[in-house]
Parts: sequence; C-alpha cells; structure tokens
Amino acid sequence: MFSHNKRLQYTVRVSESNPGLANLLLEQFGGPQGELAAAMRYFTQALAEEDMGRKDMLFDIATEELSHLEIIGSLVAMLNRGAKGRLAEAVDSEADLFRSLQGAGNDSHVTQVLFGGGPALINSAGVPFSGAYVDSIGEPTADLRSNIAAEARAKIIYERLINVTEDVGVKDALTFLMTREIAHQKSFEKALYSMDKSFPPGKLPGDPRFTDLYVNTSPGEGDMAGPWNSGEKWQVLVPSDKNTPLDGGEGTASVELASDDKAAVDAFAARGASNPSRDPVTGADLGVLSQEPKDQ
Amino acid sequence: MFSHNKRLQYTVRVSESNPGLANLLLEQFGGPQGELAAAMRYFTQALAEEDMGRKDMLFDIATEELSHLEIIGSLVAMLNRGAKGRLAEAVDSEADLFRSLQGAGNDSHVTQVLFGGGPALINSAGVPFSGAYVDSIGEPTADLRSNIAAEARAKIIYERLINVTEDVGVKDALTFLMTREIAHQKSFEKALYSMDKSFPPGKLPGDPRFTDLYVNTSPGEGDMAGPWNSGEKWQVLVPSDKNTPLDGGEGTASVELASDDKAAVDAFAARGASNPSRDPVTGADLGVLSQEPKDQ
Amino acid sequence: MFSHNKRLQYTVRVSESNPGLANLLLEQFGGPQGELAAAMRYFTQALAEEDMGRKDMLFDIATEELSHLEIIGSLVAMLNRGAKGRLAEAVDSEADLFRSLQGAGNDSHVTQVLFGGGPALINSAGVPFSGAYVDSIGEPTADLRSNIAAEARAKIIYERLINVTEDVGVKDALTFLMTREIAHQKSFEKALYSMDKSFPPGKLPGDPRFTDLYVNTSPGEGDMAGPWNSGEKWQVLVPSDKNTPLDGGEGTASVELASDDKAAVDAFAARGASNPSRDPVTGADLGVLSQEPKDQ
Amino acid sequence: MFSHNKRLQYTVRVSESNPGLANLLLEQFGGPQGELAAAMRYFTQALAEEDMGRKDMLFDIATEELSHLEIIGSLVAMLNRGAKGRLAEAVDSEADLFRSLQGAGNDSHVTQVLFGGGPALINSAGVPFSGAYVDSIGEPTADLRSNIAAEARAKIIYERLINVTEDVGVKDALTFLMTREIAHQKSFEKALYSMDKSFPPGKLPGDPRFTDLYVNTSPGEGDMAGPWNSGEKWQVLVPSDKNTPLDGGEGTASVELASDDKAAVDAFAARGASNPSRDPVTGADLGVLSQEPKDQ
Amino acid sequence: MFSHNKRLQYTVRVSESNPGLANLLLEQFGGPQGELAAAMRYFTQALAEEDMGRKDMLFDIATEELSHLEIIGSLVAMLNRGAKGRLAEAVDSEADLFRSLQGAGNDSHVTQVLFGGGPALINSAGVPFSGAYVDSIGEPTADLRSNIAAEARAKIIYERLINVTEDVGVKDALTFLMTREIAHQKSFEKALYSMDKSFPPGKLPGDPRFTDLYVNTSPGEGDMAGPWNSGEKWQVLVPSDKNTPLDGGEGTASVELASDDKAAVDAFAARGASNPSRDPVTGADLGVLSQEPKDQ
Amino acid sequence: MFSHNKRLQYTVRVSESNPGLANLLLEQFGGPQGELAAAMRYFTQALAEEDMGRKDMLFDIATEELSHLEIIGSLVAMLNRGAKGRLAEAVDSEADLFRSLQGAGNDSHVTQVLFGGGPALINSAGVPFSGAYVDSIGEPTADLRSNIAAEARAKIIYERLINVTEDVGVKDALTFLMTREIAHQKSFEKALYSMDKSFPPGKLPGDPRFTDLYVNTSPGEGDMAGPWNSGEKWQVLVPSDKNTPLDGGEGTASVELASDDKAAVDAFAARGASNPSRDPVTGADLGVLSQEPKDQ
Repeated sequence: MFSHNKRLQYTVRVSESNPGLANLLLEQFGGPQGELAAAMRYFTQALAEEDMGRKDMLFDIATEELSHLEIIGSLVAMLNRGAKGRLAEAVDSEADLFRSLQGAGNDSHVTQVLFGGGPALINSAGVPFSGAYVDSIGEPTADLRSNIAAEARAKIIYERLINVTEDVGVKDALTFLMTREIAHQKSFEKALYSMDKSFPPGKLPGDPRFTDLYVNTSPGEGDMAGPWNSGEKWQVLVPSDKNTPLDGGEGTASVELASDDKAAVDAFAARGASNPSRDPVTGADLGVLSQEPKDQ
Repeated sequence: MFSHNKRLQYTVRVSESNPGLANLLLEQFGGPQGELAAAMRYFTQALAEEDMGRKDMLFDIATEELSHLEIIGSLVAMLNRGAKGRLAEAVDSEADLFRSLQGAGNDSHVTQVLFGGGPALINSAGVPFSGAYVDSIGEPTADLRSNIAAEARAKIIYERLINVTEDVGVKDALTFLMTREIAHQKSFEKALYSMDKSFPPGKLPGDPRFTDLYVNTSPGEGDMAGPWNSGEKWQVLVPSDKNTPLDGGEGTASVELASDDKAAVDAFAARGASNPSRDPVTGADLGVLSQEPKDQ
Repeated sequence: MFSHNKRLQYTVRVSESNPGLANLLLEQFGGPQGELAAAMRYFTQALAEEDMGRKDMLFDIATEELSHLEIIGSLVAMLNRGAKGRLAEAVDSEADLFRSLQGAGNDSHVTQVLFGGGPALINSAGVPFSGAYVDSIGEPTADLRSNIAAEARAKIIYERLINVTEDVGVKDALTFLMTREIAHQKSFEKALYSMDKSFPPGKLPGDPRFTDLYVNTSPGEGDMAGPWNSGEKWQVLVPSDKNTPLDGGEGTASVELASDDKAAVDAFAARGASNPSRDPVTGADLGVLSQEPKDQ
Repeated sequence: MFSHNKRLQYTVRVSESNPGLANLLLEQFGGPQGELAAAMRYFTQALAEEDMGRKDMLFDIATEELSHLEIIGSLVAMLNRGAKGRLAEAVDSEADLFRSLQGAGNDSHVTQVLFGGGPALINSAGVPFSGAYVDSIGEPTADLRSNIAAEARAKIIYERLINVTEDVGVKDALTFLMTREIAHQKSFEKALYSMDKSFPPGKLPGDPRFTDLYVNTSPGEGDMAGPWNSGEKWQVLVPSDKNTPLDGGEGTASVELASDDKAAVDAFAARGASNPSRDPVTGADLGVLSQEPKDQ
Repeated sequence: MFSHNKRLQYTVRVSESNPGLANLLLEQFGGPQGELAAAMRYFTQALAEEDMGRKDMLFDIATEELSHLEIIGSLVAMLNRGAKGRLAEAVDSEADLFRSLQGAGNDSHVTQVLFGGGPALINSAGVPFSGAYVDSIGEPTADLRSNIAAEARAKIIYERLINVTEDVGVKDALTFLMTREIAHQKSFEKALYSMDKSFPPGKLPGDPRFTDLYVNTSPGEGDMAGPWNSGEKWQVLVPSDKNTPLDGGEGTASVELASDDKAAVDAFAARGASNPSRDPVTGADLGVLSQEPKDQ
Repeated sequence: MFSHNKRLQYTVRVSESNPGLANLLLEQFGGPQGELAAAMRYFTQALAEEDMGRKDMLFDIATEELSHLEIIGSLVAMLNRGAKGRLAEAVDSEADLFRSLQGAGNDSHVTQVLFGGGPALINSAGVPFSGAYVDSIGEPTADLRSNIAAEARAKIIYERLINVTEDVGVKDALTFLMTREIAHQKSFEKALYSMDKSFPPGKLPGDPRFTDLYVNTSPGEGDMAGPWNSGEKWQVLVPSDKNTPLDGGEGTASVELASDDKAAVDAFAARGASNPSRDPVTGADLGVLSQEPKDQ
C-alpha cells in the first residue's frame, strides 16, 4: 500500500514562466521514456515476481519513480502556472493570448487549451500515454534487460532536456532525475547477473545450427567486420541460391488442406483469378481520356 | 535498396488448418515483440547511424527480420487458408461458419471477418501495430541496450508459442525464429561492449551525490539485501523527515511569477476557492432523497 | 513523495487459479474506468491545484487509488499464478497448453503469451491503457464533475465484476474496492458544492438567448415531455425553415478571402470541377463488362 | 433515421484566413471534448436506452451535436480555405509556402499537408479521434453523470477558444456553441434527478464499513479539513501498522494452488532465483572498464 | 443541420438474444470499414468541397451512413438486450453469468462488462474507433478513389457477416446495408469520372523517365507477366549493379553540413565509435558463465 | 526472403540542415500515406494471395516501397544530421538549443528530443505509425481498389511536400518518389480490370430493390443533379413518412426475448425509470444558489 508525503523528494524552484519548456518536459511525464512508464514497468513486474529480493527492489524503484513523476509534473505545473491564470481569466487581449499560444519558442497550445496548463498524460507532441510503452513480459531474464535499456533511454532524454534548459532550478532538478536513472540501471544490472544463468533468456535452448550464424543480408561494398560478425564464434553466411533456405528445403509455404477446404480455396481462387493475357481499359485510362457526354 | 527472393529463408510446412493458432502467431507478426517491430527498430537506427560497422550490422539484421516477418506471415496465411476459403465462398451453413469463428479453441473472428484470414498488422488480441513499439532514440549506448532487451523478449514469446504448438512444421519454423533472436542478441552485445565507454549512457555524467544511492522506499518487513542495494558501492537511505528532500530544501514546488501573472493566478484561485466551513447539500444527497414533484 | 508498505490495503485471498477471471479483472487495472486511470486523474489535478484543501484531498484519493491498483493487480497475479508456471515451464503437453489458453470460459491468451500472466496495462480486451482515459482539464468546476462521473462508472464496473465472480475471496476484495468508489464520489460531491459557484462551469456566462432553449431535433411520434425539456425554464423549438438558423442569418459558411487567395481557390475549384452533364463510363462499368483481350 | 438541411444551425461568417486558429478549433471537432465525441456519447446511449423519455432526449441532443460538428467543421474549412488553394495550386514560392506552414502563430502543417486543409478527425495536436473518448457504459445513473461532466468540460474548452479568438464572426459562433453546452448540461441534470434514486449508482449497496471512511493517505503538514473529509458523516483514518489492512488481515496476496500448479511455480521460481550473496560483474561494469582487445 | 426521425431507415427484427453475434456486428459500428468511418469520411469531405454537385452528393451519402450507423447499432442493442438485463440485475448465479460471458460461441465480455451491452465505438476485437480510419485528404481525385475503395471493403465485410448469420431478421437488415454500399460505390465512380481529368491525381505531372517503369524487385523463378508489367506501355527493369541507382548516381545519402555542424557530428561519431578489433566480454557471456561471489 | 544493397534506389543529395523540413517529410515515413504503410499493405496481401500473377506483382511493389522507405528515411536523417550532433554534444548554449527546437519555421522538438534526430515511425505531428493504416482485407476486388486509392493519396502528399521544398536535391528525390506512385497506380488498375468480374466486389449480389436507388437525404435548396444521381440507371427517393422505412415496415427495432430475459430487462428499466412529472432540484441548481454553511 502507498502513502504520500506532501513534500517532494527534490525541491522544485522554477525561475520564470515558460510554457514552451513545460511542453518539452511532458516527454518525461507522459512520454515513452517518462516516469509513469518507468513506475508502471517496475510495479507490474513487482506484483507477479516470485523472487522476494527482486520483488522488494522492484517495489522500491517503482515507488521512487512515482516520486519522480511528481517532480516532473510539478516542474510542468510551475512553468505553466502564469499562463494558466492568464488564459483562464482572460486578462490579456485575445490577440495576445493567441500569440502566447503559438509564438516562436512555444508549442504549448494543446497543453493550454485542452489541459489548462496542468500536467497531462501526453508526450511533448501531445500523444497520449500508452500502456504499450510498458514492455514487461513476466520473465526476469527478459524484464531486467528491458529495465536496463529503459533506464539508459530515460537517462538520454534527461540529458537532452538539460541541454536545452537555461533555468537553473529546472536544470538542477533534471540533473537529479537523470542521475537516479544511472543508479537504477546499476541496480537492475546487479539483479540480472545475480541470477545463475540469464543467457539465453528463458528455458528453451536454441537450435545449435543457427545460434552462431551471422547472415550477411546486406552484402557487398561497405561490408565491415567487427566482433558482432567475426571471430571464432561466428559462422558467416552470404545468402545465395545454394545455401538458402537455411533448412535445405524448397523455401515455399504449404499447408495440408482437407479436401473440402481445398475445394473452397480453389473456388475462391477461381473467382478472383486474373487473366494475364487481357490488356484491359482501366480507371486510369478513363481518367486521362476526355469522355464525351453520353447524351450527345 | 531491397530485393526479394520468392523463396523463404526457412521452409514453412503446416500440417493442417488452425485459425486459432494463426491468431496466436500474430503476436510475432504485428505485436510489440514481433518481427516488424524488430525490423523497424534496426532499420531506423541504421539510417541515422554514424559508425559504419554498426550501420552495416543494423542493415544486415533489419533485413533478416523482414525475412522472418515473411516466415511468420506465411505461417499465419497457411493456418488460415482453409478457413478463408470457406468463409469467402460460404460453403458451410451460417451456423457452422459462426461456430467456426467463435468455438472453443479459437478466437479468430477478427482475423477472419475483418482481414479475411490474411496476416494483419495486429497482435493476437487484434490491437493494431504501433510505431510506439519501436524504442530507437538515436544514441547507440541506449539503442544497443534496447536491441538486446528486445531480442530477449522476442525469444521468450517464441518460446511460449512453441510450448503451445502441436504442429510439427510450425514448431520447427518457430524454433528457427527463436534461435535467430539468440544470435542477434549476441551480435548486439558484442557491438555494445566494443565501444570504449558505454556506461553511463550518453555524454553527461551523473551528480556524484546520487549515483550510488539506493532509496528504500518500501521499507519494513520483507526488506531484502542483494547486490542491487548492498555492498560497498551502495549507500542506502530509508526516507524520513530528516533526510528528505534529498537536496536539503523544503520540498515544495515554486515559481517566480511576474506581477501580472501573479494577479491572474490569484484571480483564478479566488474564483475556484472552496469554502471548507460549508457543508453543502450535494448531488449525491439529491440522488438519495426522494424529491417531491414540484408541481404538487 | 510516495512510500510503499509491502502489506496491501486489503488482504487478497484467491481460492483457485482462474486466468479467465483474471482477464476480466484487467478491466479495472488498465481499462478506462480502472484504478490507474483514477489515480492519474486525481494526481494530475493535484499537481496543478491552487486550492490547498482540494489539493490535499486529491493527493489523498490519488494515493489510495494507487493502493487499489495494487490490490486489483495482486488479484490478477494470483489468479494467473498457476497458469504462468505451467506455460513457462511447459509442464503440460502442447495440446493441453493450447487448450488452456483458448478453451471455453477463458480468453486469456494475450495475458498469458504476451505478458506471461503478469498484470498488464491493458483492459479486458487487450487494448493498452491510454492517457486519453484521463479527462482532467485544469478547471475545478469541470474536473470535480469528471471525478464524480468517473467514480460512478467505476462503481458500476465493479458491480458487474462482482456479479460474475464466484470466488469468495475475490468477491470480498472487489466489494471493498466498489465501496471505496462510493466514498470517493461523496468526497468529490462535497468538494464541488463547497465552491461558491460551480454552474455554469468556468467564468464566461452563456448567451441568454440560448441557455434555456431545448431544440427538439428528433420531433414527431414518440416525443416525450420531462423536466429536461418542459416547465417554465424551458423554451422548446422544433426546427423549421422559419425559425432556423438560430441566429436569423442565411445559414451558410463564408470567409472573406484576399484576392490572391480567391484566385487560388478558384483555380483549385476549376481543376476539380465535375461535369454534371457527362454520364461517363466508370470503373464499376469496366468491372461488370467482360473486356476482350486487346491483343486479339 | 437522419436527414440533413444544407443550411447550418448557426451562420458562420469568418473574417479572414487563419490556419493557425483553424488548427486550434480542431480541438472541438475531433478532440476528446469535441462535438463528435458528444454526439456519439449520446447517440450510443440513446440506442440502448430503455426509458422512452430519456431516449427521446438523447436523440434530440445527439442530433443537435451533429449540427454543431457541422458548424465547427465549417469554421475550420473557412479558416483554411485560402491556404488550401495556395498549397494545392502552388501559387507561391516553395519558401513562402514552407514559411506559411510553420511560421510564428501557426502550427497547421499536419492539417495542410496531410489533410489538405479540410476538417479532420484529429485534435489540435494532430492526434486522431478515439472511440475511447466516449465513456458511455449503459447504466443511466453513471451515464447521465458522464454527460453532465462532458458538457462542463466542453463548455470550458469553448471558453478558452473564445479567449484566444479575435475574429468577430468566429467568436460569435463559438459563443453560441458554448452556450448550448450549458443548456445541455441543465437537461442532463434534470434527467439524472428525475430518477427515484441515483446514488449510489447502480444496484448493489456498498459495504457499510467503508462507505463513510476517509483515508488520509497523504498525512502531515498541509492537511486540510473540508466537507469532503470532516463532519459527522465522515470517519477519518490515518493508515498505520495498527489499523491496516482495513480488513484486519495480514495484507498479503495468496492463492490456493493445485499441487501440480505449485510444482510448476516452484520450478519457475527456482530457475529465476537471484543469488543475493553474489556481487557479480555486470554490463555496467563492462561499459566503464576499458577492455583490451582479446587478440592482443 | 441535421434532424432525426425516430423511425429507422430499415426495420430491425431480431429473432433472439445473441451477444456473440452482436459482438461481430460491432465491426461495422465502430470498426475501420464501419458506418461511422463511412459517415465521417464523406462528411469531412463535404465540409471543404468546392464543387457544389459533389458537395450535395457527399452530404446525401454521409447522412444516409448515419442512418445506417443507427441500424447496425440497433441490431447490436437488440442482440444484447437480454444479456444486458441479466447482468445488470444479477438474475442468474455468478457462475452462469461468468459462463455466459466467455462460453463457446461468445466473446462478448468487453461489450458486456465495460459497455453494459450498449453499442460501443469499438470493432469486434474491442479496439476503439480511430479517426485514422478516415483517409480523406482534401483532393477530389484522391478522395473519390478512397471512397470507392471504402465502399468495396464495407461491402465485403457485410458479405462475411451475412455468411455467418442465421437470424433471418438480422440477415435481412445486413443485406440491405450491403446493397447500399454497392449503390454508393456506383455514385462515387460516376463522380470520379465526371471530372475532366482524374489521372494522374492532383496537378503535378510525373517524371516521364519513371512513369512507365516496372521494377522487378522480386525476380527469378515464379516471375509472371500480366498487363500490370507487360505490353507496350511498360518498360521492365530487373535491378542490378549496372542499372541502379535509377538516377545514375552513386546511391549514397549526403548532406552539406556547415563546419560547426560537421564538428559536432564528428564529436558525436567519435564518442560512439566502435572498436572492431576488440572482442569484448559481453553481458551474454556474463549470463552464461557462473560467477563466483566476489566476497569469497 | 529479402536482401539489401547498401546503395539507395535513388541518390539523396541534401543541400543543408533543415530539421523543420525533416519533420514534414516524416509524413511519408511513418504517416498514414507513407512508404511503410504502402509496403505493408502490399506485403500482407502478397502473403495470402492465391493468384500467382498478382502475388508476384504485390511482392515486387512491396519490396520497392521498402526501398522508398529507405530513401525518405535517408532524407530525414540527412536533414537532421547537423542538429543531431549539436544537441547530443551540447555545442551551443542552452538558449540556442532551445530556440533551435522551437523557433519559427521549425516544429521538430519531438524528433530531436525523443528520437535524437533519427527517422522515427511517426507522422509529421508525432503520432506513431498505426497498423490501422493498412486496410488490406483479403479480397482482391476490394484490396486492389484500396491500393489504387492509396497510391493516389500518396501521390498527392508528395506533391504537397514538393510544393513546400526549396532544396533542389530533396525536391528531386521527392519527384522520383511521387512518380513511382503513379506507375504503381497504373499497375494496380491493370490488375483490377484483368479480373473477369470486379464489380460488385466479392461474391454476393445486392438486393435489386436497392442497388440503383439514390436517397436524397439532404434535400431542398442546393440540390444538384449529376451522373451520380440522375439518368436512367438511378431511381431517386426523397425520404418522407410515406416512403420510409424502405422495407415498408414500422421502422422500429425489436427483439424476441425469452420470458426470463424480458423479466430482467423490465427490472432494469423499472430501476432506472425517470419520473417525467417531477421537476427536481439538480446539481446545476446547487451550483448556482449560494448555500449557507450548515453549521451556522
């Protein structure tokens, strides 16, 4: 069960109104690499986790991400606070308010008109948060790798936001949030490798004929060698008519159909058969040729 | 530029019609861990990649994933082929066709009615493929981790599909596809660690005050120690009134408002102020009390 | 800032595995009327709220909804726990596992195959949670009404789930969750009517010509009178050529165009003009008539 | 059945081309609080309504909302009409056309390039209309509250749009549309309270132990009292180890598993168990340490 | 402006409750080829149309599609009416209600639990209606072709639904709806070819080097000739190193960068450069090798 | 199976950095009329096609569209290349970087901050690519028409992009891509009309009472005659009380309910019945009237 402390985990001190910057920060509120996605990624994993140690860690980090969601949301609310008041109370002329929504250095019209300046579950383009951002699949050898990657991505988004922020207080809070992603990545890395075996993920082994095979499907000039395709552990194959399909078969797709199924498919095929020897007049032809009115 | 060979990379031999199984396989055609998501993840990275070695690798693997999309799509098409013919030609009674769409062991009504049995860009629940499944962000230290995680997740989904498949030919093709995810994960791992420095991701360092801090936000009974929160590299903090906010500040959110902004916010606040001393009659009260018709 | 207690707000005691029921319960985990939508609705409002009393209330209820999200998620995890193990470890035959995913009384294939039985941010049809479910717009006279309505809807979904649940422990937890929606609705009702003026919502008054007008756009047999369209406060209008448009104008849409804009629109119109006196041969005609191959 | 009159319900007179304003107005065409969402909310309720009076009202208001959709769509079409012609006929230089799409005070590139200046089923950020905006659930005690809230939200969005509109004709039409939302809200309020009992919504009563309970989950400094949590009808609880879980139980989640299920879960847990006493080298470590090329 | 007549355009007589069939019919209520998509496709085109004849036609057909939306919605409401009552009033045992939601021949749990049996803006899989289904782009030579194709698709979906419907009254109404799609397609065909020139669509001509070129990108065994790639109007090209790129250039992508841009890109590339001569230990290696606890 | 050649099908030569233009071009990378949608439309059709000629054509064109996706993605990558470097390496001041993201003539903040300047599966508004863009339904008489319409739409979007592009190299590549849509449309037209019968689409004939009927649902002033509603093949009907419903019935919706179903529906109706003779006090009334605090 959760409880809330009205104090933030990190103090938010914004220097001045800036709805355009608020808009950018929404990327980490309701965007794919944002704090809600992070919190829900770990929270959903925690609920079904069987290992008590990881479960504890997942609840710890999920809860901290909720506190970070509160920080980034507070930044958005403060950056928008003045604009919110001006629009709601209509203290400026309509022309001034219109310009303030769409002028240079600002793209906050959705935030202002639709959400009244409050933090909304959207990214910086106005796209609603999606549960599809959460890629938990209930297998720790995969989920921990997803968490590591998610922390890496979130770190980068914060880095980019810091690079475009002049406001000292905002930059300070963003740096805190960015740093915590680094710490969380370290925890998830430790958790992954404290399992006895994490590769290949899951339980089933691969087919040994294909586990060390690198298929050079983009061959020719520009081919490069690196540890990802060269060295003793790799067998490299440039596909050709001789070595493909990889199973040695004919490379077709087939299904055994019951006789009545086959009859139905044949009827379907016959109905839709094209006649390759016909060169028909087409709609494109009709659209080019000027047709005389029929009533003439 | 791409070219196509009409032979598949791996031969598809399906034993019998099975629209229910086709429906499950759509998970890897148009689902979040599916082959289109994989192909597009690597293809979009390849287009913007600056390192010629990784670019070559990304094109190689992206192209192979397109061939895998063709394999899984061919499996779906073959499993649905008989059902497609029967529905299009209406060879059975309406009752039989209705039952075949919704009977036990089958949930393929969307695939059949909407898509005519063809492979569609949906997952096994009928949710359309989304570009949001592709988490490329243009920074190799993050993208390669995303790729590693994505391959791990895809491997697991194939493993689960294999576990529910009786058809020998389908199982064989799925095992091939699963194995290739293992090989691809290995390539991405090699590429990640062949960079001089991949951690922390990106360029900006973290704030050293917070990089080794583990915040125990779910404290108490059930707390567990592990390498993710214990050992010399971790400083553990149980949040309390004394040690939070972590910046030592007051934990509030504030913004410096221009005076006219402040006036507008005050007006907005005054207009919406609640009167805590009032105990009003509410709509809930009205909904409980029987009101006499006014015209009586 | 948030903290977590590993104990639930309400104990979850599930009688037996039931992935089909788990699937239904997802409606209140990641669905439109679910607990995450509720928590985020109040949390986003709290962040931008100017009235300290309502802000406190919104944080209280948002936080409780997170605890309810944990309860419903724990119900899902427990109901799926056995099935998760069986599929991951492949302890049954493939045929049995396939049947268990799709048999009568069960529609949990997405939950099992894609999410491994963990609670996922989807509704009971597998549609991902959307930020669009959160209808906060930053104006308390509207948001509180949205909250009242949302609690009413959530209460009904719980009622329906209770009606289809045989498991005593699940029913008990659902009844708790349903009851809390009633209590929350009462709080939001009190908050709405403790404002000095909450109707019309916002600041701008309506145009008095149209505030008491009821337009009978579906006139004729079946017309009914009720307090929503009859009584002294309503003026009823059946639209006719005489009384519409309601502004007394000509009912057209027009724009003053600059002369060069007008010229461009005219050119556009001329290029796409249809010739009503032509009765052309069409693609439909071509598709009916058998065309002789041209090369004959 | 519907019929259409080529005259609008309210005359649209736009003063000049303004694609930027057209873009904002799309919020009420294809946005969450827009006229299509409104029309469909009431129309879907009308179709399944059992009370003939409400059914009549719902058809009346749904049909009027379609006429409002036509008004707002006509405003968009007129505001974009000049720009549409210029882009389609390429009457300006490419540079001028590019600037006109993206210059200050304008964010209409999606509307112009993708939709050719026509009104599109998107909101002002370009997000496609979603059926998820329609929150009808088929229970009048909930649906009428949803309608009341939806009208309140729509009124506010119109108010904000009016505040940023200088064009007298546009402002006039928007004021009409805003006013009608007020009238509709009044009708829905009357309909709600003309039921004998509308609270609690639905049929099932709540559990009396929890209907008057207010849980102070965000306790401490800043706690405020108001009618939503104080007075004789409220029992307030600050959660503590003593009074939670609220059912008096142990606060855990449990399920009775069949023995073979239990064995499968145990196997799953064992396979994924973490070893807390291991302090492993991790991928983060590998990413920091410079690795010597192996071939040296 | 719209008006409504409480009588349907076609009488709906349903023989018996059938929520499973109701669920399938939702495909044409809120699905991609459904009546709302059709109505909105033509309505949005009508609003911006410059040709008065087409505008009239588009309003006529859009309005009729709204009447068809009412018919298909009424079918859904009637098929669900009994089930709605049973669930809302809980007249059966919980087990019976659960089975009725998920039993063989039925997949209506979303419709029942979330929407209470009312017609909802979803397709038969529960996916919400999307504005993205409406492909109007504001150019008549394209939009009319989109309309023709949309009518063809809708005709096919109705045909499939008819094939799985036993209920005589439902089949009768569906046949009416299917037939109207045929009539509408004919109207749109006439409108397309009554323009002086409709091909190529739009205003700009193509580059004559590439308008009659067929690129055989999937060459080899299985190549087929047909009017789409053979005959005097086609020039066929099998891509090879000699004839590609088609512009005769080097086939690379390049950009002229300002010197400071170039420096920044170089720095970015250097930071992320991979070292192809390194064969690093990777996370996959760590996941295979059993690591000894460090504290030993 | 696919293979890749590192050379593009058409050489991309971009004159200078232009992230704003890159943003617009995304419309054809991840937008509804873009190259991925095209490739997937034809690829999914090819997989299930029964006619070997069309199957070959569909693979040819699908593969070429993938090569076009590579061209448009390369254009985006080149146009963003400088900006990517500047933001990642933070070579400018924060203020300059902020302005570069949001200044006049640029709306690329999503592309830059979230995707790091790489081509992303979004449209020009930042909306993720959706599988719903692909309207293949597995019936060639419908799918070929969808393909024709899709090519027409794509041609128009390219035409608009060309109209706003000053960069000679970009314009050249866009003209190539636009031209190929013309060629593809011609192929699909030929394929459609080389079938023996393509109208009406599918197998079932229409009901002859309704195939030649034009319903004038928007009658009155402004009615226009054209080949779509006049001439010998059309029967025109202006709906009136006398000639509707079109089946000659009563125009109601009805269902035969089992007696227990009927009892449940009656109970549901009774519980929710409105009392039309009551004129209740409502929440709107409460929100207008100032309520005295109860404790006074």
